[in-house]
Amino acid sequence: MPQTKFLLSENDIPTHWYNIVPDLPSPPEPVLGPDGKPVTPDALSAIFPDALIEQEVTRERWVPIPEPVRELYRQWRPTPLVRAHRLEQHLGTPAKIYFKNESISPAGSHKFNSALPQAYYNKQAGITRLVTETGAGQWGSSLSLAGQLFGVDVRVYMVKVSFQQKPFRRSMMQTWGAEVLASPTNLTNAGRAALAENPDNPGSLGLAIAEAVEEAASRPDTNYALGSVLNHVLLHQSVIGLEAKKQFEMTGDWPDMIFAPCGGGSNFGGVAFPFFADTAAGKKPVRLVAVEPTSCPSLTRGHYAYDFGDTVGLTPLMKQYTLGHDFMPPSIHAGGLRYHGASTFVSQLYHEKLIEAVAVPQLATFDAGVTFARTEGIIPAPESCHAIRATIDEALRCKETGEKKVLFFNLSGHGHFDMASYDKYFAGQLEDYEYPQEAIEAALARLPKVG
Amino acid sequence: MPQTKFLLSENDIPTHWYNIVPDLPSPPEPVLGPDGKPVTPDALSAIFPDALIEQEVTRERWVPIPEPVRELYRQWRPTPLVRAHRLEQHLGTPAKIYFKNESISPAGSHKFNSALPQAYYNKQAGITRLVTETGAGQWGSSLSLAGQLFGVDVRVYMVKVSFQQKPFRRSMMQTWGAEVLASPTNLTNAGRAALAENPDNPGSLGLAIAEAVEEAASRPDTNYALGSVLNHVLLHQSVIGLEAKKQFEMTGDWPDMIFAPCGGGSNFGGVAFPFFADTAAGKKPVRLVAVEPTSCPSLTRGHYAYDFGDTVGLTPLMKQYTLGHDFMPPSIHAGGLRYHGASTFVSQLYHEKLIEAVAVPQLATFDAGVTFARTEGIIPAPESCHAIRATIDEALRCKETGEKKVLFFNLSGHGHFDMASYDKYFAGQLEDYEYPQEAIEAALARLPKVG
Repeated sequence: MPQTKFLLSENDIPTHWYNIVPDLPSPPEPVLGPDGKPVTPDALSAIFPDALIEQEVTRERWVPIPEPVRELYRQWRPTPLVRAHRLEQHLGTPAKIYFKNESISPAGSHKFNSALPQAYYNKQAGITRLVTETGAGQWGSSLSLAGQLFGVDVRVYMVKVSFQQKPFRRSMMQTWGAEVLASPTNLTNAGRAALAENPDNPGSLGLAIAEAVEEAASRPDTNYALGSVLNHVLLHQSVIGLEAKKQFEMTGDWPDMIFAPCGGGSNFGGVAFPFFADTAAGKKPVRLVAVEPTSCPSLTRGHYAYDFGDTVGLTPLMKQYTLGHDFMPPSIHAGGLRYHGASTFVSQLYHEKLIEAVAVPQLATFDAGVTFARTEGIIPAPESCHAIRATIDEALRCKETGEKKVLFFNLSGHGHFDMASYDKYFAGQLEDYEYPQEAIEAALARLPKVG
Repeated sequence: MPQTKFLLSENDIPTHWYNIVPDLPSPPEPVLGPDGKPVTPDALSAIFPDALIEQEVTRERWVPIPEPVRELYRQWRPTPLVRAHRLEQHLGTPAKIYFKNESISPAGSHKFNSALPQAYYNKQAGITRLVTETGAGQWGSSLSLAGQLFGVDVRVYMVKVSFQQKPFRRSMMQTWGAEVLASPTNLTNAGRAALAENPDNPGSLGLAIAEAVEEAASRPDTNYALGSVLNHVLLHQSVIGLEAKKQFEMTGDWPDMIFAPCGGGSNFGGVAFPFFADTAAGKKPVRLVAVEPTSCPSLTRGHYAYDFGDTVGLTPLMKQYTLGHDFMPPSIHAGGLRYHGASTFVSQLYHEKLIEAVAVPQLATFDAGVTFARTEGIIPAPESCHAIRATIDEALRCKETGEKKVLFFNLSGHGHFDMASYDKYFAGQLEDYEYPQEAIEAALARLPKVG
């Protein structure tokens, strides 16, 4: 049997992150304040350290990775590139399937790639506390561990329904020393307002973001950290694609298509952007496919417009594909993909038809996850199941056409803390959601008026 | 910072397992039947395939690993040898600490190393079903996945109290296609007898073994698989130590002491025996330390005697350190170490003072696990916490003496399905158990009379 895992040594961990800005076909749209004018970096300094604000706006193609962060990357990076021989055999496809195994990070997903530099830069800036939100728990876990390793206290506003449904994600964060609160809390204006309206409010990601941002803005020792959407987060995640390119050189293959789940965009951007750099440089383009849930179809059914990042409207306005900031996605089990919008870079590339997007229904994603688990062994996170679904669909198309495409997806995380979702899938208790067009139009009608 | 991970390529996966028998100072004591006479291999063929029976009694030093098993080992092996820099710094010890990271196996622990060949040999022998028992769930998970990969149906008798306390371990096994039953069941004589006596019987590992063995013996299409204790299981686990030896050659260091948790003995034997081979060959001996719970101290407080492998007395008699086959260890959270006895090879080496043993209390093991999680990132299984505790204790002794010892332990599994135990630890709900000497003496008084 040909080689299964393509490994790099610690010396192959990238020394620089890749920033897509200089390779974009046009300059990115500016971030706007409530007055409709571009936000200055200063306005962000209440909640972010200067180093991250600089990374948010930099136009340098290569941004150096600080040595203390590279040292911590060594604990699990470079992650393996794996040839999914058994999945290929099971499908009977002539396609070759590869995946990048980000699930072996100590925190269980790719989110740790950005949590470490965010904790590091905050520590360097003299910040002693970080607050953040978490839905599925992957980001909250990652920041908890990163804070522990750099000596920064971490408080996590965890969406209440997740707090109750995923008690062991909470345990994990506590084991790493973080404080975990069920959001909405009565510690913030945003939380108190929500509870006053409905004492049983189950929380939402947008509301948890609002609570965390409010706290960070009000305390000088405390900053805010976000696990996706923002430019600097996508920048940090580029280590995935940079490593993968080196590894594909070892395989003798090169991907024809790359699939990644897309919620806020850090997963997709992390694996896909470094390959886009080649396209921008005039090499044979790789088809880059963002995979989203049919229940939260920001790219495939949203509008390209300025919108807030949170539900309440506290954040600046970003140009993005959005379903409307107060769009409430149903309680699907891929909590990491329940977001109304998408990163500005991902949105811009999609708007300019340089990347593709596809939406897949929930049941089919779990079916793909179980197929993957039973062939490749690893039980994938529900978010990752979206990329696996789209990859399998393409592999089955190749079976019909006889095409020997090279397919590559990012296995962003394991599903060890999502087994209740698998239980519900096996028990026939999960459903597919397809939003009626009127509901989406109604939310879009409430978009802020800008420009 | 010096190198963190020492990686091997797939070509470095061992081609042969290491069998300790030719290196033992005296021939192993025979396994005896109820009549006190040595059991013939034929007597085992009702529940094991010939290939495994041969491995159980072979005196060959090197046993070839079948290619289909090596191919599946490639999905995650060789596992990394990791230098625990941050744990060393946290302790302020001059000792160097290394661990072998077996937790990255798809099933979450080293148990998968033996599950694969057991499923393979049974499949080769025309067996279509395997039955087994599981307590903590690590072994049941491993056999479920191995059965799925080789096309063998798997039924797992899961100790009822674990079935209820660890629902997500059950989910994991079901995701891999196995059938999981709460033991005692009403499907076997052993189960029905237990339920007749007490309908609320919470089950035990010994009882679950009895149910699985009974079923396997009664059905020609069905065999039994065991995850520890037996010689062939320790044989399969030797891949851990064999890889580690190659990896230590890359480090420029060599372990002075090796620590591994010890329940049945597969974990300890797997990592330690290949190093014992060097001692047997006259090289500088490495101190090999089996770490057991104070609540189930087979080696440190048991007798060296013939005893059954199960609670009921269905298995042949093996010479071993035992607390008495009907000794009921308390419900500590390291379920994999709740076993009354130990492998015959481990017992023989301990009896001849060629290895060491130490017992550690439960609270101190969780304390060590949290320290490890907060420095090295990985949340360890409660079983693995035992090895970490003993390693930390030695590292702290080195801090006092200034010795620069090289310490090495086997991180046998992750604790992602054990977070409820960590919760109880943080909530102050865990206790230490030290058995009164009378209780142990009473169980030992019920040992079968042999020889």
